[in-house]
Amino acid sequence: MGRAHSNAYRQAPHFFDLPYELDCRLLCGRNRETLEKTAATWGWSEISTDWREAVTRRDIDLVDIAAPNALHAPIAIAAAEAGKMVLCEKPLATSAEEGARMVEAARAVPNFVWFNYRRIPAVALCRQLIEEGRIGRVFHYRATYLQEWGNDPSRPLGWKTSRADAGSGVLGDLLSHLVDTALWLNGPISEISSLLHTFAPGRDVDDAALLLARFANGSIGSFEATRYAVGYANRNAFAIHGERGMLRFNLEEMNWLEFADAAAPRNLRGISRIPVASPHFWKPGHPIGYEHTFIAALADFLFALSRGEAAHPTFADGQQTGLVLDAAARSAVARASVPVLT
Amino acid sequence: MGRAHSNAYRQAPHFFDLPYELDCRLLCGRNRETLEKTAATWGWSEISTDWREAVTRRDIDLVDIAAPNALHAPIAIAAAEAGKMVLCEKPLATSAEEGARMVEAARAVPNFVWFNYRRIPAVALCRQLIEEGRIGRVFHYRATYLQEWGNDPSRPLGWKTSRADAGSGVLGDLLSHLVDTALWLNGPISEISSLLHTFAPGRDVDDAALLLARFANGSIGSFEATRYAVGYANRNAFAIHGERGMLRFNLEEMNWLEFADAAAPRNLRGISRIPVASPHFWKPGHPIGYEHTFIAALADFLFALSRGEAAHPTFADGQQTGLVLDAAARSAVARASVPVLT
Amino acid sequence: MGRAHSNAYRQAPHFFDLPYELDCRLLCGRNRETLEKTAATWGWSEISTDWREAVTRRDIDLVDIAAPNALHAPIAIAAAEAGKMVLCEKPLATSAEEGARMVEAARAVPNFVWFNYRRIPAVALCRQLIEEGRIGRVFHYRATYLQEWGNDPSRPLGWKTSRADAGSGVLGDLLSHLVDTALWLNGPISEISSLLHTFAPGRDVDDAALLLARFANGSIGSFEATRYAVGYANRNAFAIHGERGMLRFNLEEMNWLEFADAAAPRNLRGISRIPVASPHFWKPGHPIGYEHTFIAALADFLFALSRGEAAHPTFADGQQTGLVLDAAARSAVARASVPVLT
Amino acid sequence: MGRAHSNAYRQAPHFFDLPYELDCRLLCGRNRETLEKTAATWGWSEISTDWREAVTRRDIDLVDIAAPNALHAPIAIAAAEAGKMVLCEKPLATSAEEGARMVEAARAVPNFVWFNYRRIPAVALCRQLIEEGRIGRVFHYRATYLQEWGNDPSRPLGWKTSRADAGSGVLGDLLSHLVDTALWLNGPISEISSLLHTFAPGRDVDDAALLLARFANGSIGSFEATRYAVGYANRNAFAIHGERGMLRFNLEEMNWLEFADAAAPRNLRGISRIPVASPHFWKPGHPIGYEHTFIAALADFLFALSRGEAAHPTFADGQQTGLVLDAAARSAVARASVPVLT
Repeated sequence: MGRAHSNAYRQAPHFFDLPYELDCRLLCGRNRETLEKTAATWGWSEISTDWREAVTRRDIDLVDIAAPNALHAPIAIAAAEAGKMVLCEKPLATSAEEGARMVEAARAVPNFVWFNYRRIPAVALCRQLIEEGRIGRVFHYRATYLQEWGNDPSRPLGWKTSRADAGSGVLGDLLSHLVDTALWLNGPISEISSLLHTFAPGRDVDDAALLLARFANGSIGSFEATRYAVGYANRNAFAIHGERGMLRFNLEEMNWLEFADAAAPRNLRGISRIPVASPHFWKPGHPIGYEHTFIAALADFLFALSRGEAAHPTFADGQQTGLVLDAAARSAVARASVPVLT
Repeated sequence: MGRAHSNAYRQAPHFFDLPYELDCRLLCGRNRETLEKTAATWGWSEISTDWREAVTRRDIDLVDIAAPNALHAPIAIAAAEAGKMVLCEKPLATSAEEGARMVEAARAVPNFVWFNYRRIPAVALCRQLIEEGRIGRVFHYRATYLQEWGNDPSRPLGWKTSRADAGSGVLGDLLSHLVDTALWLNGPISEISSLLHTFAPGRDVDDAALLLARFANGSIGSFEATRYAVGYANRNAFAIHGERGMLRFNLEEMNWLEFADAAAPRNLRGISRIPVASPHFWKPGHPIGYEHTFIAALADFLFALSRGEAAHPTFADGQQTGLVLDAAARSAVARASVPVLT
Repeated sequence: MGRAHSNAYRQAPHFFDLPYELDCRLLCGRNRETLEKTAATWGWSEISTDWREAVTRRDIDLVDIAAPNALHAPIAIAAAEAGKMVLCEKPLATSAEEGARMVEAARAVPNFVWFNYRRIPAVALCRQLIEEGRIGRVFHYRATYLQEWGNDPSRPLGWKTSRADAGSGVLGDLLSHLVDTALWLNGPISEISSLLHTFAPGRDVDDAALLLARFANGSIGSFEATRYAVGYANRNAFAIHGERGMLRFNLEEMNWLEFADAAAPRNLRGISRIPVASPHFWKPGHPIGYEHTFIAALADFLFALSRGEAAHPTFADGQQTGLVLDAAARSAVARASVPVLT
Repeated sequence: MGRAHSNAYRQAPHFFDLPYELDCRLLCGRNRETLEKTAATWGWSEISTDWREAVTRRDIDLVDIAAPNALHAPIAIAAAEAGKMVLCEKPLATSAEEGARMVEAARAVPNFVWFNYRRIPAVALCRQLIEEGRIGRVFHYRATYLQEWGNDPSRPLGWKTSRADAGSGVLGDLLSHLVDTALWLNGPISEISSLLHTFAPGRDVDDAALLLARFANGSIGSFEATRYAVGYANRNAFAIHGERGMLRFNLEEMNWLEFADAAAPRNLRGISRIPVASPHFWKPGHPIGYEHTFIAALADFLFALSRGEAAHPTFADGQQTGLVLDAAARSAVARASVPVLT
């Protein structure tokens, strides 16, 4: 993640006419050797093994957090209280309570959560088409985030499978992405039923999460996030069915959006695969990739900042996702449907 | 359905060297004019507007039921008690209690439920690969049956949207297919959470059903059946992820099965799209269609009969599916997880 | 082929309200045992090992030829001269000269060539969309017919790899299909460059044929037919690009047509995958297969007959395809571009 | 192109541990305003409106040419004669004669042609699998480069449609890519038949090029490059069929390679879609895009340089492609098959 963020700072000025000049001042982390190498590669001026230095130095305006989840709250709250702008990796927090404190602390400073997939041009077009009424009243929302590395015994366990570091397993890691996108595209979720499961013996976080949901707009939905979907490295996909059409997306084919227009003439009704390019990167037909979502997110934050506006998702938006994750965790324990708290 | 069954009786002898000669004796239905036309087209010798005639005549050995769901039990029980073999359209019954009585009544006669999709060559290959251990221990099962006609205001409402005739909406109509396949491929389901929804005002059956499931083998699953998935005419799809691989199928591409072999060399790991042909119909590369599932099912029933064996799914198998549907209905009311009764 | 034709005679009355009653009177072939078995299975009243019996008997109105290519001309000419209607498998003839004689002989009788793929509903829709001007002036036509069995050493060599029986290899077997469709969809071809190749040592027919073409309408095209396209059992595909859009088809997905509408709003421009069903067979979303193309072709012939019209492709149409194949053969020898004779 | 190259110089040190430090010294072009803006954005130290400055300055070691095709030869020859390393955009030259002079001039200096698509990880894997013998003896090679902008009347005509600037139309622009990849994957081409066509009235370059080819290894191939393939923004695709399998690639899905293994067990034979990631960029499942091909090409050049080796394609490789283009041009005029000169 440090690499994806560093790349965003380096690349944003190349593709966007930014309102600010960026100065990558201080890179913080735990391992000095790694820090030195990363700083040299990506052009960070200084390094520190103590994140508090970033918060206390007066020459730093913005703190960007890509640390393990359990560190999000302490760093973000300290940074915000020191008056710094705060950008935080997802999930915002390891619990709804922690998230609430972060929202509170960051009220006075520009803040942002790196749900980078909102900036995929195809996903942005999807949102625009929904807002234009292209699919009308929504009936169904369906989203899956499928990875397989949980089943790979050769893979070293990192902080993502430790409750102490990550707070949760796929809930915060993968389901949070699905929920952020769902709230953005289809509005609030009111009620959740869930099933969480851990396949690996002895692991204290969820390896898989299945959800059923009722949205405030009357539509119903299902969500699945797992690290045991053997066959898929990283498949983040959703489909939305409305009375006037269907929209479908899959991260594996991130330069495309699919649209079924129910208003098309009967004999031409089908599912259209639309290539979607960004005006900021390369010409149509020249694919962009994973990293461009971070570049575009950073640019959006900076443009919003220059206009005195919030860039979304803010911490408050991230907390809405956190409340859905909280409901998912409660429902799994209760083995019953629960409301999403607000 | 009468057409699909009639076609099966006509075509099975053309593609299979059957152990019996078939004689299409009596076609029953409600409308005499329709009966006359259908009988003339498909070569039924006689017609009747009273199904009891099929049950009471001594020159009839087998009764095949393609009537609305609410008639399954009375016809099947009467036929079985009269010593006839009974083939019944899915879902077996409109309730678990009714299904139990049908199983009981049909104990002494050969019986079969028309879950035709088991006979898709690609689905049969899927089952075989699972039995060969190709995907190993199963983690995830995911199935969706997506139709859109619920959203078509121009479509006349038939018996499928009436609780009195159909017993349920998508539960019996679509979810039953998914569950039959799931039980066949992945074994018993022990626990269910569900969400049922009716989109059409005033309709007394479910238009959409979402399920979360725990299977007896430790895997977890999700199911979605709906008539409001605008964009899909008839998409019946499933994916199964195990520790050694993934299998995926979609009725829209029914001549193909997809297989990800996790045991393949690392740099060749992918999802293989395998064309699957039946040895009984046309050569590889010459697609078969919807009707061939009925032809092959009938042939399998007749071959099993000649060997003195049961052809699956039997009424008892159909009742297992019925018990899952029953759990789905109960869970939706309870808004909580419920066990599948056995 | 005998099986596909027999099936058409059996099935056409089930799906179409035909203007004639069909009576499958006499099945001819070389092997008495095979004939007896096939006649019993498919309900042919009589058999004969001499095709001349079909031509000379007065109780026979129509002769349908599914024999090896070299027999097409003698049977068709004899049948036509005896006043029988003649249906002939593709390719019409083994040479342009032979084809010309067949056209001449059949002038006074209803005649038809079994280019069955014209009857795929998706291909028929393609033709309709072109006629409606949906893609405008055509720029490019591209078609490939890819099979792999030439590379299978375990496969017994049949008459299709013998020049004496087949007249040619893929030219008549596969390329003829592509050319018939191309002429139907895009009009006459005026000029051809070709490359023919035989991979198998000692074989006297072409295993692969590549063509470049100029159409009379100003568009240009390429064609490839081969039995050495390892990876494809039977892939017959084409794409047509016009100033207003693109149409694309692939036999492997024969229930779908793809359409790119260049007149769509810029941000919705994509390739639409349209499910195409036939009103005569099953409901939308219920796939049809290979055999339905023969059923529909036979029905079309019979309906045209009842109206006193020709059903296409006639022998004259088949001869147009033959003249393109003739040009392909000449160009390959000349290693130069040649005109298509008319 | 200047942007894609500038990006490569900026990004290569971030993803590769390069053996050299890069210093972007002088940006040359025709328009001072554009130069100033581009230099500021991408960090070029100086600008010049005279490319000769790059050739004559002693503090410049490497000249990278992204100018219109007609300038490739004069710049490259001057740079090479001044002892500079030369990197040149494709096509190498506007004629075979010009290309020969460039090869001659660059004999003593490291040189490279930017056929960037060789560096797509999926294409590199394709080459590796061929070298491992995975598809065995090759039968067929098929490649298409399909664009649609020729049909867009709103698009301003640039140097690419002027013979004086570009030397040719799609021959140099698109076909050159296909040929470079083909020569790399399948070896030399010995004979060509071609058809060139210009759709736009008054344009003096080819809008479309169709080729048939014989390769030295006994396989046969077809190529199509066009700017009138309405429906495709930028589809660069190929398939190779050998006796043991098939390999297939499409730039629209550049993170995937498809492989049909004819040696797989009969009932598992299919086309496998393999996700291919680069170890240098992001983790598996995180797509890369167009620009990464340039970054990887530059890195390869620099690593080869540090080892005293040539990076491919060199000017000499580029000239092999040029000789195929030359044959294509000659064949089109002759309307006959011609040999590729060597």
